[in-house]
Amino acid sequence: MNTAVFGTGMVGQTIAAKLAALGHRVAVGTRDVAATLARAGSPDAWNPAFADWQRQHPDVKLATYAEAAASGEIIFNATNGAGTLPALEMAGAGNLNGKILIDISNPLDFSKGMPPSLTVCNTDSLGEQIQRAFPDVRVVKTLNTVTASLMVNPRQLADGDHHIFVSGNDAAAKAQATAILKDWFGWREVIDLGDITTARGVEMYLPLWLRLWGFTQSPNFNVKIVR
Amino acid sequence: MNTAVFGTGMVGQTIAAKLAALGHRVAVGTRDVAATLARAGSPDAWNPAFADWQRQHPDVKLATYAEAAASGEIIFNATNGAGTLPALEMAGAGNLNGKILIDISNPLDFSKGMPPSLTVCNTDSLGEQIQRAFPDVRVVKTLNTVTASLMVNPRQLADGDHHIFVSGNDAAAKAQATAILKDWFGWREVIDLGDITTARGVEMYLPLWLRLWGFTQSPNFNVKIVR
Repeated sequence: MNTAVFGTGMVGQTIAAKLAALGHRVAVGTRDVAATLARAGSPDAWNPAFADWQRQHPDVKLATYAEAAASGEIIFNATNGAGTLPALEMAGAGNLNGKILIDISNPLDFSKGMPPSLTVCNTDSLGEQIQRAFPDVRVVKTLNTVTASLMVNPRQLADGDHHIFVSGNDAAAKAQATAILKDWFGWREVIDLGDITTARGVEMYLPLWLRLWGFTQSPNFNVKIVR
Repeated sequence: MNTAVFGTGMVGQTIAAKLAALGHRVAVGTRDVAATLARAGSPDAWNPAFADWQRQHPDVKLATYAEAAASGEIIFNATNGAGTLPALEMAGAGNLNGKILIDISNPLDFSKGMPPSLTVCNTDSLGEQIQRAFPDVRVVKTLNTVTASLMVNPRQLADGDHHIFVSGNDAAAKAQATAILKDWFGWREVIDLGDITTARGVEMYLPLWLRLWGFTQSPNFNVKIVR
């Protein structure tokens, strides 16, 4: 399948590498291709500069958001929360409409120090903001509750005996996203929380997730819903 | 031990019954004793009127918040979020200072319809509001992430193979609360998230919890941190 991944940081690199390894065509979208390739570090600093990473993943194409969106049949949004709506604007509704947008972003606000707070929460969410701004895009919020390496390899932890969630208004889009999560990435059980307003719950889980990271001393954990 | 439980609803009844069954002296605090006993239903409507419940638990005393706080060596706050600070004001700092307050409340706002939003979140929490208003009370936030029956009987679900959290500024108070959770209530592992600001995380988990309730069709679930 022709896929697009928005974002060149750790999450974008991880998703793009997995998609390429599965044999899909992958275009990674960025604001400014030349600037991304010239950048010495990555946006989140704890993974390789994109140019170094791309040398190890020569099949992955780097493109503008608009080019990547135009070529992708499905789009993974792995931009940071503050950059998500600008990235989608640059991609253009015409290149996105009718397609599934797997939204992995978190609306983290680092401006007030650590740990980050959220730029939107409680009565709204970034997932809903995206859906309102792009009503003809089939937004599915998922994967934002786990660290990048677990997103595409959940079986590395307790043989996958833990959970991931989907939120969205389009039942067929959620079913396709669920199939991708299971068949491509290896998730054993995907919990459908409901419509896109349920993105509030998974985004508001981040403050607990950040503290659990402090407790476990590793981001390589996840929740299992015991019932 | 002499214990106090603030709140006459499902959570207050459940905690009070457990404490009494363990042989502790229990005073349940309420705003107006006569009004509580005269009330036909309970505040949350899905459990017995307090007067009916008390006939089955004759050892549990009903008292004003101030009387209950004065008699209790430890206080469990099971009021609803909107009623928490007013209840503590009525109890009086003089009756609370130096004591451990196990805060189980959630700052749920039902005024905007279902599901509820939160009255405070993101950069503050009800746990912090309580600690700021009563700086000499030893606030420990816990148990707000599970349904009442699980709070005091976690082994009923997967033999207790799931987690509960504590947040608070006072390490000794958290240690005592953790001992209560384990030795009195049966929790197998209690995760210390950090200081009282980590109450934001467990309170902001509620929107996800409410949607998980919708998914599981029962409130009798909890999270296990898989690591």
